[in-house]
Amino acid sequence: MSLTEIDRIHALLPHWVESSRQQCSYGKVASYIPELSKSPIGALGIHIIDASGHSVSAGDTEISFTMQSISKVFTLILALMDIGEEAVFDKVGMEPTGDNFNSMLKLELVQPGIPFNPLINAGAIAISSLIAGASSTEKSCRVLDFLRLLSNNDSLSYDLDVYRSESDTANLNRSMAYFLKDNGVLEGAVEDVLDVYFRHCSISVTCADLAQMALVLAHNGKNPLTGEQLIPRRYVQIAKTFMITCGMYNASGEFAIQVGLPAKSGVSGGILTLVPGRYGIGLVGPSLNRKGNSIAGVALLESLSREFDWSLF
Amino acid sequence: MSLTEIDRIHALLPHWVESSRQQCSYGKVASYIPELSKSPIGALGIHIIDASGHSVSAGDTEISFTMQSISKVFTLILALMDIGEEAVFDKVGMEPTGDNFNSMLKLELVQPGIPFNPLINAGAIAISSLIAGASSTEKSCRVLDFLRLLSNNDSLSYDLDVYRSESDTANLNRSMAYFLKDNGVLEGAVEDVLDVYFRHCSISVTCADLAQMALVLAHNGKNPLTGEQLIPRRYVQIAKTFMITCGMYNASGEFAIQVGLPAKSGVSGGILTLVPGRYGIGLVGPSLNRKGNSIAGVALLESLSREFDWSLF
Amino acid sequence: MSLTEIDRIHALLPHWVESSRQQCSYGKVASYIPELSKSPIGALGIHIIDASGHSVSAGDTEISFTMQSISKVFTLILALMDIGEEAVFDKVGMEPTGDNFNSMLKLELVQPGIPFNPLINAGAIAISSLIAGASSTEKSCRVLDFLRLLSNNDSLSYDLDVYRSESDTANLNRSMAYFLKDNGVLEGAVEDVLDVYFRHCSISVTCADLAQMALVLAHNGKNPLTGEQLIPRRYVQIAKTFMITCGMYNASGEFAIQVGLPAKSGVSGGILTLVPGRYGIGLVGPSLNRKGNSIAGVALLESLSREFDWSLF
Amino acid sequence: MSLTEIDRIHALLPHWVESSRQQCSYGKVASYIPELSKSPIGALGIHIIDASGHSVSAGDTEISFTMQSISKVFTLILALMDIGEEAVFDKVGMEPTGDNFNSMLKLELVQPGIPFNPLINAGAIAISSLIAGASSTEKSCRVLDFLRLLSNNDSLSYDLDVYRSESDTANLNRSMAYFLKDNGVLEGAVEDVLDVYFRHCSISVTCADLAQMALVLAHNGKNPLTGEQLIPRRYVQIAKTFMITCGMYNASGEFAIQVGLPAKSGVSGGILTLVPGRYGIGLVGPSLNRKGNSIAGVALLESLSREFDWSLF
Repeated sequence: MSLTEIDRIHALLPHWVESSRQQCSYGKVASYIPELSKSPIGALGIHIIDASGHSVSAGDTEISFTMQSISKVFTLILALMDIGEEAVFDKVGMEPTGDNFNSMLKLELVQPGIPFNPLINAGAIAISSLIAGASSTEKSCRVLDFLRLLSNNDSLSYDLDVYRSESDTANLNRSMAYFLKDNGVLEGAVEDVLDVYFRHCSISVTCADLAQMALVLAHNGKNPLTGEQLIPRRYVQIAKTFMITCGMYNASGEFAIQVGLPAKSGVSGGILTLVPGRYGIGLVGPSLNRKGNSIAGVALLESLSREFDWSLF
Repeated sequence: MSLTEIDRIHALLPHWVESSRQQCSYGKVASYIPELSKSPIGALGIHIIDASGHSVSAGDTEISFTMQSISKVFTLILALMDIGEEAVFDKVGMEPTGDNFNSMLKLELVQPGIPFNPLINAGAIAISSLIAGASSTEKSCRVLDFLRLLSNNDSLSYDLDVYRSESDTANLNRSMAYFLKDNGVLEGAVEDVLDVYFRHCSISVTCADLAQMALVLAHNGKNPLTGEQLIPRRYVQIAKTFMITCGMYNASGEFAIQVGLPAKSGVSGGILTLVPGRYGIGLVGPSLNRKGNSIAGVALLESLSREFDWSLF
Repeated sequence: MSLTEIDRIHALLPHWVESSRQQCSYGKVASYIPELSKSPIGALGIHIIDASGHSVSAGDTEISFTMQSISKVFTLILALMDIGEEAVFDKVGMEPTGDNFNSMLKLELVQPGIPFNPLINAGAIAISSLIAGASSTEKSCRVLDFLRLLSNNDSLSYDLDVYRSESDTANLNRSMAYFLKDNGVLEGAVEDVLDVYFRHCSISVTCADLAQMALVLAHNGKNPLTGEQLIPRRYVQIAKTFMITCGMYNASGEFAIQVGLPAKSGVSGGILTLVPGRYGIGLVGPSLNRKGNSIAGVALLESLSREFDWSLF
Repeated sequence: MSLTEIDRIHALLPHWVESSRQQCSYGKVASYIPELSKSPIGALGIHIIDASGHSVSAGDTEISFTMQSISKVFTLILALMDIGEEAVFDKVGMEPTGDNFNSMLKLELVQPGIPFNPLINAGAIAISSLIAGASSTEKSCRVLDFLRLLSNNDSLSYDLDVYRSESDTANLNRSMAYFLKDNGVLEGAVEDVLDVYFRHCSISVTCADLAQMALVLAHNGKNPLTGEQLIPRRYVQIAKTFMITCGMYNASGEFAIQVGLPAKSGVSGGILTLVPGRYGIGLVGPSLNRKGNSIAGVALLESLSREFDWSLF
C-alpha cells in the first residue's frame, strides 16, 4: 500500500514539478543576503525518501543551497539534547507570533522579554547561545557534526561565500542580538553567538540531504535504515509541533490548513517536510512568495498533500 | 485495544481529576463578564465519549456553563458551510497572533486589516456577520439549531443572565466591532452582528454536550453513532487545524507541545477537545490561568495525553 | 510699529495667498466624512485681526466651513473652566504622540490607559464627557454658547449635513469611544458623549470667526476690544502649549520648527492660529497634505512667520 | 527690572533648593550605566547667569557630572552647521514620539524608517554620524571643541570611567544603531558612530558650564558677554523648538505646560534650560523621576517659572 503510493508519486511527480514551476515567475529570489540573489529563480526540485530507503526525485535536485532557517529545527533539537527542555524554554517561548520572522516589535512589547519561539530569528539566535561548547568554533562544529550524522553525509559543509555575505550584511540580526543581550537572554559575547548562527544558516545541502534529515524526524528520531535512535522521541515531538505552528514564517497557519504537514522553510528557497511514519522530503525553489517561502515549493506540497491526503488534521 | 484504553481511563480518571483539581487555587474565575464571576472556582469535571457511545466521566460533570469562545469553532464551520472557504477567508485570516484574544494591536498594524484568524474575538465577530440568515434572530436560531444537532440535545439553549451581562458590559468587543466596520470587514449593523455573537457565546452546555460535539469532529464530521455526515470533512479539517494553532488563546503553542490535541477553550472554563478517530472530550474547570484557560483542565489534559500518548505530533 | 506691520501685511497678503494657493493641487480634500468631500479644493482664505480691531483678509474668506478638530481647543478650555486642571488631567495626558490623530495603537499600549493628550480624537472624546451639563443637549448648548461668546457671533450654529454625515460614518471614533469606556475613561453613555463630540466638530464658521476666537487666546483670555476676561489666563496658557506640541496632528513638531506659533487645524481645512499679544488669525484651505493639514494654509503661514519673524522660539 | 528679578532670585533660591531637595527621596539614581549609579541621590544644585555675566547659584553646584542626553542639543547644532537643515532632516524627523527615549517600537513602524527626532537616542546616534570629520576621533574632537567654546571652559573633558561604563553596557544603543544601519540611516561603521555618541554623552560639566552654554542659546547664538555670534540664529531656533517639544523625554508635554521653557535633561540628573533673551540655567539633581528627569530639578524649575512667570506660552 505504501509501496503503491510511492509508485504513484514516482509516476506523477515530474508532471507536478513542471506544473508548479510556473509559479516561479510570480515570486522573487531573496536579496537581503547579497550572495543569495544569485540563486536560479526558475529552479524547482524535490526528493522524497521512505523508510526502506526508496526514493523519488524530480526537477532540479542537483542544486546545492544553504539551509538558512531550516537549520533552526536542528539547533533547537541539539540545544534540547544538550541542556533539556526546562533550560531551553527559560530563554525562548512556545508561541507563534503572526509577525515577520525578523520583527522586533514583539520583543519589546511582550513580557518577560524572551523571543516568542525558537524558529523566529530572535529565538534561533538565543538557541545558538545555548548549544554546548567551549567556544563558538566548538559549538559550530557540534552543529555541523550533528547535521552530517542526520543526513548521513560526512561531506556536508559551509558555503563560505554565503556565510561571509550574511555575516557582513546582517545588521538587523545584529540589532536583534544586542536587544536580546540587553534583555539578559543571550549568554556570551554577541558576535560569538552570531557567528554560530551565521555558520549553521550557511551549511550547504541538496534536496536529498534534507530528505534524509526529515526521514529521521518522520520516524520519531530513529534512522529507519539503520535502526539507530539519533534523537530522543520527545525532542522530535517538540520540533514537529513547532514546525506546524511556526515553521513557515507568518504563513504557518495557512500552510497548516492547506498542507497540514510539519515543515520548515528557508530564504534560500529550501523546504524540509515530512509525512509522519513515512516520508522524509526535501525541496528547493529559490523564487519566494511575499511571506518568504518557496512559491513553487508550497504549490507543489499543496498538490501532493491533497492528492495523497497527507494532512495531519 | 481501544476498549482496553477506555477501561484504563475509567479506572484512572477519578484520581487524576482530584489531583488536577488542586491547581484551581492558583487560578481565577473570569470576572470581565460579571455573571461569570459566580462560577464555582473549585469545580472540575470531564466527560469522554468514544465512537461506540461508551462514555467515562469524572468530577463535577453536572455543572452547566456557557460555551463562550468554544462556540467560535462551530460558527466558523457553519459560515464555511453557508458561503464556502473563499468567501470566509476573504474576511478573516489563517494565522495565529501571539497576542491576547482581545488585543486590538494587530488589527491596526497588519494589512489588509482583517482579523488574524476566526478564533480571536475580532475574527469570531467577523464570522458572526457571515452566517446566513435574513436577520440577527434568524442567524442566531441557525447557530443554536446546528449545535443542538451536533450535541444531539434538542433542549440546548441560552443562559440569558450571561447573555445580558455580556451584552451590557462588552465595550471592548463593541470597540473591536466598530473598528472592523470601519475597515469594511463587517456586513450589516454592528449591534446586530454583536447580538449574534453574544448569543452564541451564551449557549449553555454540559461536559457531555461538548463531548458529543467533539465526537463529530473526531470522526471527520460524521456522527459515529448514527453514521450521518453532519459536516463536510474538509471543514472539520480546517476547524481542527485552527484548534491546534489558535484554539487555546496565546497559550496555543504551549498546549500543542504539552498536549498536542485540537482544542478550544472558553472563559467559562470549558474546554472541548478530541482524539482524532477516537474520542470526543468535554471538560469544565472555571478557575483560569493567566492566559484564560482552565488551569486544572489543562493540567488534566496534559496528564491524559502523556499517559496515553495522544499527541498528534 | 505694530501698525506698520499690519500695513505691510495688508499690502503683501493678496500676493502670498495667490502664491500659496498653487499648493492646493498637491493635496486632497478630506473624504472620510462624505459631506466634507464637497469642499472646494482650490480655495484659500485668511483673516487677521489685531487688538484694536483692525483686520486684513485675503482670498476666499466668504466660505463657511466646520470647525472639526479646531473645536477641541475650546472644549478643553471649557472643561478646565468647569472642573479644573486636576480633574481634566485625570482623564487625559499631556504628551504628544507622533501617531496619527485617529490611531488606536497608543491607547492600548500605554499605561494607565488614558488618551495621550486632549487634541487627539480619543482625548477630545474624553473631554466631551467632562463638560458640565445634565444631558448631552445641555453640554452641546454650553459649547455652542461659549464659541458664540468668543467669536462675538450670536448666529454661530451647526452644519447639520456635516453633523449627520459624521455621526453616520464615524465607526472609528465609535470604536475609540467604546475602548475608552472599557478603560474607565468615559463618563456616561457612549453615544451621548459622541453626540456632544460630533456636534462641536460640526459648528460652522468663517475665517473671521476663527480670527476673533484666536484674538482672545492671543490676549491671554481677554477680549482686547471689550477688555472682558473671558477665559482665565492659566487655561489659555495650557491651551496654547498644547497647540504648540500637538495642534497640527503628527506634523506638530515640523510646524513648530517652520512656523513656531500655537495653532490648531481641522480636516475641513481650517486653521486657527495666533501671534501672542498681537493677532488672531483664521484661515481655510480644504486641500489637505498627507498629515491632514491645509497644504496651502501651512505654506502661507510659513511665509508670514518667516517674513515677520513670528516664531516664539 | 531684570536686575531686580535676579536680586529676588538671589534671595529666594537657597530656600527653594532646600524645599525642592526633599523630592529626591521619591526618585532613583540612574542605574543602567553602572558608573552613574554612584551619583549622590540627595544632591541638588543650580546656577543661573544673565547677559551681563551676573550669576546666582545655590545648592550642590560644585558637583561634576556627565552631559549625557544634554549633549544631543549641541551635536544637533553642530551637524546643522556642518551640513545644513536639508541634509540633517533627511536622516532624522521633527516629531515628538510619546515613547520612552530608548524605545525601538517607533523605529520599526513608522515610514520612512528614520528616527522621529534628534533628541531621542536613535536620532542622536544618527546625528553623530553626520558630524563632519575624517574619523570618529576627529568628530569627537570637534564636538568637544565646540562645547569648550560655548561653555567658555577650555578644560572641559571626558569622564572616562563613565565613557567606558556606557560603552561596555550599551547593548540597547548598539541594537538601535544596527537597526538604523539596516535602514540606511547611518553613515560609516556602527562602532565608530557609537564611539562618537558615547564620548559626547560622557563629557563632564558643572552647573556653571551648562548655564554658560544655555546663555548662548538664550541670546540666539550670540555670547552676550563677548558679542560673538557662535551659532547661526536659525539653528538656535531649531534647537529651542526641539527642546520644547522633545527635550524632557516623554514628559516634554507636561514640562511645557508646567514650566514652559526650552530645556534638555540627561540621565545624570542634569538639566540645561534658558529664559529667552535673559538667563542661561544649569542644574543637577541625580535622583530621577519615572520618566528619567531630575525629580527635584523639575520641581525647582516649576517653582521658578511660576513665581517669575517665565513660561513662553
